[in-house]
Amino acid sequence: MSSEPSKPVQIGLLGRGNVGAAFAELLTERGAAVEAATGRRPELAGVLTRSEGEFGEILERSELIVELMGGTEPTREYVLAALRAGRPVATANKQLLAQHGDELFAVAREAGAQLRFEAAVAAVIPIVRTIQESFGVAEVARVFGIVNGTTNFILSEMAARGAPYGEVLAEAQRLGYAEADPTEDVNGADAAAKMAILARLAFHNPVGLDQVSYEGIESIAPDDIAYAKELGLSLKLLGVAERREDGISVRVFPCFLYGGHPLAPIQGSFNAVTVQGPAVGEVTMSGPGAGGLQTASAVLGDVVSILAGEAPVHEPRERLPIVREAVSSFYLHLEVADRPGVLATVADVLGRNGVSVRSVVQRGLGADARLVMVMHAGPEESFYAALAEIAPLDFVRAAPRAIRVIEEEFV
Amino acid sequence: MSSEPSKPVQIGLLGRGNVGAAFAELLTERGAAVEAATGRRPELAGVLTRSEGEFGEILERSELIVELMGGTEPTREYVLAALRAGRPVATANKQLLAQHGDELFAVAREAGAQLRFEAAVAAVIPIVRTIQESFGVAEVARVFGIVNGTTNFILSEMAARGAPYGEVLAEAQRLGYAEADPTEDVNGADAAAKMAILARLAFHNPVGLDQVSYEGIESIAPDDIAYAKELGLSLKLLGVAERREDGISVRVFPCFLYGGHPLAPIQGSFNAVTVQGPAVGEVTMSGPGAGGLQTASAVLGDVVSILAGEAPVHEPRERLPIVREAVSSFYLHLEVADRPGVLATVADVLGRNGVSVRSVVQRGLGADARLVMVMHAGPEESFYAALAEIAPLDFVRAAPRAIRVIEEEFV
Repeated sequence: MSSEPSKPVQIGLLGRGNVGAAFAELLTERGAAVEAATGRRPELAGVLTRSEGEFGEILERSELIVELMGGTEPTREYVLAALRAGRPVATANKQLLAQHGDELFAVAREAGAQLRFEAAVAAVIPIVRTIQESFGVAEVARVFGIVNGTTNFILSEMAARGAPYGEVLAEAQRLGYAEADPTEDVNGADAAAKMAILARLAFHNPVGLDQVSYEGIESIAPDDIAYAKELGLSLKLLGVAERREDGISVRVFPCFLYGGHPLAPIQGSFNAVTVQGPAVGEVTMSGPGAGGLQTASAVLGDVVSILAGEAPVHEPRERLPIVREAVSSFYLHLEVADRPGVLATVADVLGRNGVSVRSVVQRGLGADARLVMVMHAGPEESFYAALAEIAPLDFVRAAPRAIRVIEEEFV
Repeated sequence: MSSEPSKPVQIGLLGRGNVGAAFAELLTERGAAVEAATGRRPELAGVLTRSEGEFGEILERSELIVELMGGTEPTREYVLAALRAGRPVATANKQLLAQHGDELFAVAREAGAQLRFEAAVAAVIPIVRTIQESFGVAEVARVFGIVNGTTNFILSEMAARGAPYGEVLAEAQRLGYAEADPTEDVNGADAAAKMAILARLAFHNPVGLDQVSYEGIESIAPDDIAYAKELGLSLKLLGVAERREDGISVRVFPCFLYGGHPLAPIQGSFNAVTVQGPAVGEVTMSGPGAGGLQTASAVLGDVVSILAGEAPVHEPRERLPIVREAVSSFYLHLEVADRPGVLATVADVLGRNGVSVRSVVQRGLGADARLVMVMHAGPEESFYAALAEIAPLDFVRAAPRAIRVIEEEFV
């Protein structure tokens, strides 16, 4: 190593919240390691927060911009300005990328400036780099995973303790696993943004947040989880991006997994993502999907890659349509009057709609009778047509509850 | 994309066995994707096998060398010659890197030529890139994993069917999961080479195969696995590289994992590796650890990274001593005479040597009595001192069997 000190690299930091503060600290702590790896010692050129700093001035002084302020405005303007000025950008901002990816990547390409975003999906789990670099020319058939730690924590706790959604959410907020306003986590929007990013990279295709169908976990009842346990199933909020004959499909939905599924053991606030393809087989990565330090660590990895001169800039090479029709297996929970012929009637409606039943559990007697069924996979529209016929039947005592089930073959 | 065809990049391929043939095929199949990602269409400049091709001629015609012939000689000479001639090299050769890493990396640095080897550890699981790039400046405390698919297949089958080692090995050979000469897999040498490579990258330190302690699975008996099941344990061949107060330690040994351990669910020929560190938390990656196509896919990822101009060349920045003393928990299986005082005597010997007992299962009566114990973690030398006292006791009917246990905290 040369004893002559190298010129430090000036880094402009946008935002000093939880992740921003952790990044600033990590930059100091690992400064020597960054210098050993890249030949350049990192230095903070300036920090922009709501109350201090001026963006133009910080940009002027910086070789590289780290965006950790979040939100889409004015963040989008700042990131575009930095790229246009030829500054590489590392960001953890999933909403920015999912909503404005086409524009951001186009500007980065034109300016020849790197845009890196490992921390935007699953924090320190290196899924962005893996899909973009390791599997960059592999044929990817499907990417699926648990990409929201808040909902996985809530579902794990509901399963472990049999507690209702609202109670567990309040506890998650107390423990810092859920934000004061948890809407984007629990309704699936956060996971949808992450899946839009992964689908874009895996399929080399423009994918925006508005092309992702998503459902959340707000209406999951603890007894659905309990009944499903008897069938060997555990409930997860899953994101699935897949190549289909007629295009690509990107969806987020709560679903049951069989015990042998590689994502079934993922508990608490952990994230995990599986990539499948003919030459890749099936590779799964899991780890902490959030946390200031873990997210900052992923951002620092991007900074080092930028300094090392590696240069993957996403450029779509496909223009595949987004497909919304889906084939799924369903769990169906019915509260019914306990009288002869109920199961036969339900089975008849399902059969007429082409829905085939895989297993049935009948529970209770009298007013408390419940019918819990799992279907074989089939077109979702067939199942929903059957459901629309079943719901108004006179022996059905409450709104039917339907949740998707991932079959064992889907691994 | 420009319509003018780019000049193809000429690739020299050394070896056309299982992986070499799969690579040549994949290169054709994914040629257009490689060109889209890098701007260069790949072309085979020549193939060197035992019966065809001349190395000097192929090197002359190639911009980049892919080494898939295996072995250390003459492979080492070829790879050194290629690097010295300024040609980047992608290789899947773990023994070459584990035995001659210092020399190869030094020559690559001097020549400014890339040396990439994702496929040398765990095939398509991108653990090399993750440690080298994503976590390149993170502080890594420990890397551990199941890095040999043959032994994991054998142990999984022994556990599932209660069959003895020799029978399952023969079946593994029939199914292609074990080679005709399985020595290097089953004695731990293959896993040791892979752990030497991971330790080198994780700790930025020179680590050679001769610095790794290893044990294999040849003497594992099916009833050890059966007894351990009752204690909630499953048996794996684990590689562990860790930073210790006084240096680094790299070991491979069969051991029991508690059910909650992230590697406990890894079955069959799959591999999995976990990286732990203060800023990283714990990240686990799993997938197929072998297979011609999966290995070739990892090599192709390296070729693309070389063409994209990314340039991580390993340079040690630490010189830590290799530590061999270890702290472990042990499972101990004793066949004993069923008479009063046996447990008390064994417990006394353990106690005097400072070994603390965590759980005990006593089995059978009369001639068939067995004592199965799990210890709390302590210095291995204390346990082995106790074992040396216990083995010759008159009530001990067969050689005691001891296997390490990974405590639940070790996750």
